Amino acid sequence: MSDESATWFYEHFEHSGSAIGFRVTGKVDEVQSPFQKIEIWDTTDWGKLMVIDGAIMLTTRDNFLYHEMMSHPVLFTHSNPKRVVIIGGGDCGTLREVLKHKEVEQVVQVDIDEQVTRMAEKHFPELCDANADPRAQLLFDDGIAYMKNAAPESVDVIIVDSTDPVGPAEGLFNEAFYASCHRALRAGGILVQQSESPLVHLSLIKSMRHHMAAAGFAHFRTLPFPQPCYPTGWWSCTLARKGAELSGFRERGAHSKIFPTRYYNVDIHRAALASPEFMRELGD
Amino acid sequence: MSDESATWFYEHFEHSGSAIGFRVTGKVDEVQSPFQKIEIWDTTDWGKLMVIDGAIMLTTRDNFLYHEMMSHPVLFTHSNPKRVVIIGGGDCGTLREVLKHKEVEQVVQVDIDEQVTRMAEKHFPELCDANADPRAQLLFDDGIAYMKNAAPESVDVIIVDSTDPVGPAEGLFNEAFYASCHRALRAGGILVQQSESPLVHLSLIKSMRHHMAAAGFAHFRTLPFPQPCYPTGWWSCTLARKGAELSGFRERGAHSKIFPTRYYNVDIHRAALASPEFMRELGD
Repeated sequence: MSDESATWFYEHFEHSGSAIGFRVTGKVDEVQSPFQKIEIWDTTDWGKLMVIDGAIMLTTRDNFLYHEMMSHPVLFTHSNPKRVVIIGGGDCGTLREVLKHKEVEQVVQVDIDEQVTRMAEKHFPELCDANADPRAQLLFDDGIAYMKNAAPESVDVIIVDSTDPVGPAEGLFNEAFYASCHRALRAGGILVQQSESPLVHLSLIKSMRHHMAAAGFAHFRTLPFPQPCYPTGWWSCTLARKGAELSGFRERGAHSKIFPTRYYNVDIHRAALASPEFMRELGD
Repeated sequence: MSDESATWFYEHFEHSGSAIGFRVTGKVDEVQSPFQKIEIWDTTDWGKLMVIDGAIMLTTRDNFLYHEMMSHPVLFTHSNPKRVVIIGGGDCGTLREVLKHKEVEQVVQVDIDEQVTRMAEKHFPELCDANADPRAQLLFDDGIAYMKNAAPESVDVIIVDSTDPVGPAEGLFNEAFYASCHRALRAGGILVQQSESPLVHLSLIKSMRHHMAAAGFAHFRTLPFPQPCYPTGWWSCTLARKGAELSGFRERGAHSKIFPTRYYNVDIHRAALASPEFMRELGD
């Protein structure tokens, strides 16, 4: 249906019957790690494009949406986030946003695949410019095992910044993993996880919440946000809290933040808490 | 980059270097009107797909986002919208939403191409189920000429529901057209126009506002919303008001609306007024 397919990289989303493509000028790097194949493409309009096992992970141009929304809403919802764990997140974009919060004393990032971080350092250096922060610790290890072995009541915020719930990341979407997270969180601690497209993955969001509830979490919120490079261009994160409600956030802190962002601000945070009519069944 | 291209319909957005595709099972209808080629495809997951001159117009599954956001925010911003004009909008989805407002006494829809409406009646009948409403008048005529000849101070709300600002719709994005709209509006009247993707068309939005200001409009707001079938999956409409500010909306009316919607509600309206950090330069 087009004679230009040679210059376009497409990802076909089997589950949703839709596809997204970027115009590319060539593949600039590729590595087969013990876990997955990581490719880097140059695009005409979106900077670099990272693809893992055929799935679009991020582009230079639009990753700020996802990384800001995976970090600032949860950190401004917690009253005093000192210890943060990121599961996945190997491109380090979420880590960079988390480290913008001065009250954060320690961030441990646990990604199973060191090659994702090495590729990010090479091709998305702007996402890695906080990696040397003394508060940051980068582990290349199994995030499921890490949370299972984490000391009880030792963490304030857990950010699950993973690929889709198939393959290696599948174990990050079940009750056993959520029970490990719940145990590791202090009272009032919050788990946030990327939760796919509100429009085509509402049943996944319900299933995640069901498993989170079975693991002891009692309060949930799903925040939608735009993300052009993911299916439908509309994505979400879901927050689950231990032992406290999820009814507000530190609006004054968000309003007077001194670090720069490109999407997030206090108004956008409030806006992300609005529930579209078709999502009302979630009860947010 | 895929061996499945035969089963996918793609639109390549030259301006943004991105593409969107839907898995299709076949073309079910096609007509060459005096103005454009209209195709209807069956998709596996998105219902029917309407394509005009190769550009994706709407799908059964996701058009509610666009149509609700092109109608309800502007109608709940106007204090008492009685007379409404829709320029374009031949699929009748916006018309259907407008007619849900009981205070609206008359809606004139002016689309240049009758075949768009005929195809919508056949393949998207749910969008046309209010066409027989006695308050609705469907004209197949030139919207630019219609607004030029409209009686001064005769309209409360003008909705410009058009294709991209190239080809036939180009004349809907310039000062002369906006001057016609300004003259036709009553004091406090509002023009709303689809204004493309906030992420890749910010300069277009600024240019629209510039031309609107030159035509006499003084206050503007751009409301973003998700729209999977359009470039980046994130779209917007821009409101411009004659002789009054655009600082709020009828929140009580929106909250107590008795008609059904799938995306829009009072919280979503408030949320759409939040300006992402990179859009602050618009001054909303």
